[in-house]
Amino acid sequence: MADTFLDPGQKLPSVALDISQELIDRYAEVSGDFNPVHVDVDGAATSEFGSTIAHGCIPMEPLFQGLSAALDRPDLPFSTQINLRYRRPSRPGDTIHLEASVAGIDAADAATVTFACVNQDGDVVLDGECLIPFANVTRPESK
Amino acid sequence: MADTFLDPGQKLPSVALDISQELIDRYAEVSGDFNPVHVDVDGAATSEFGSTIAHGCIPMEPLFQGLSAALDRPDLPFSTQINLRYRRPSRPGDTIHLEASVAGIDAADAATVTFACVNQDGDVVLDGECLIPFANVTRPESK
Repeated sequence: MADTFLDPGQKLPSVALDISQELIDRYAEVSGDFNPVHVDVDGAATSEFGSTIAHGCIPMEPLFQGLSAALDRPDLPFSTQINLRYRRPSRPGDTIHLEASVAGIDAADAATVTFACVNQDGDVVLDGECLIPFANVTRPESK
Repeated sequence: MADTFLDPGQKLPSVALDISQELIDRYAEVSGDFNPVHVDVDGAATSEFGSTIAHGCIPMEPLFQGLSAALDRPDLPFSTQINLRYRRPSRPGDTIHLEASVAGIDAADAATVTFACVNQDGDVVLDGECLIPFANVTRPESK
């Protein structure tokens, strides 16, 4: 196995994100997605969801930040693959945290990281796995 | 095959997103991810990337919006699966558009949508496929 700096069984940092209506509103401005299900608080209260729900990218953010912290680099190595499945919506008032660990390193020196983004009730909002190639990734200096 | 409203071969709307440093800065505020590679314009100019790069969620946005438009609903049906691979960074000045189509509908009434988010030079920045279950999804009324 080539030199890597994710080790099998290693847990990733448990990054957390608080979701508020203000955060959703600001994400709407960034993305241009002002769908009422995200931003119409009164209308959404009577919808099938019973409240506004966060845009799909928002509960992914702990994953990006946890991977970045574990890899000690700001971006994902190119050809990183993310396979994810949405399990339930995220809402204002939720705190989403990352539970992720390195499932293995394959012969081609790619790490498989399994992950779940989980709300404050312990419910999984999205989960899946990432395949992270280590080619061109430099191990951080020991600190 | 059960009743669906994505048809094999159907192209999804080609949603486009202009990426600017202002958008990246605003996304940093939303996400709390102020890594210099995203927000330090002068420092990033001398980095390996030669400029700032967008957070990983940003070039996914045309995919979310194209799926939402095709499905005529604001959210993704739960258990929607997204498998994606990052191919290259997105930068200020890029316009990312979606190229996506329905590859097929399986026996369990789930649509496979293949997609690429492509920059103004025709370079793929991320690509992959989605598996969208139609259970509990109501076909929009004819208009």
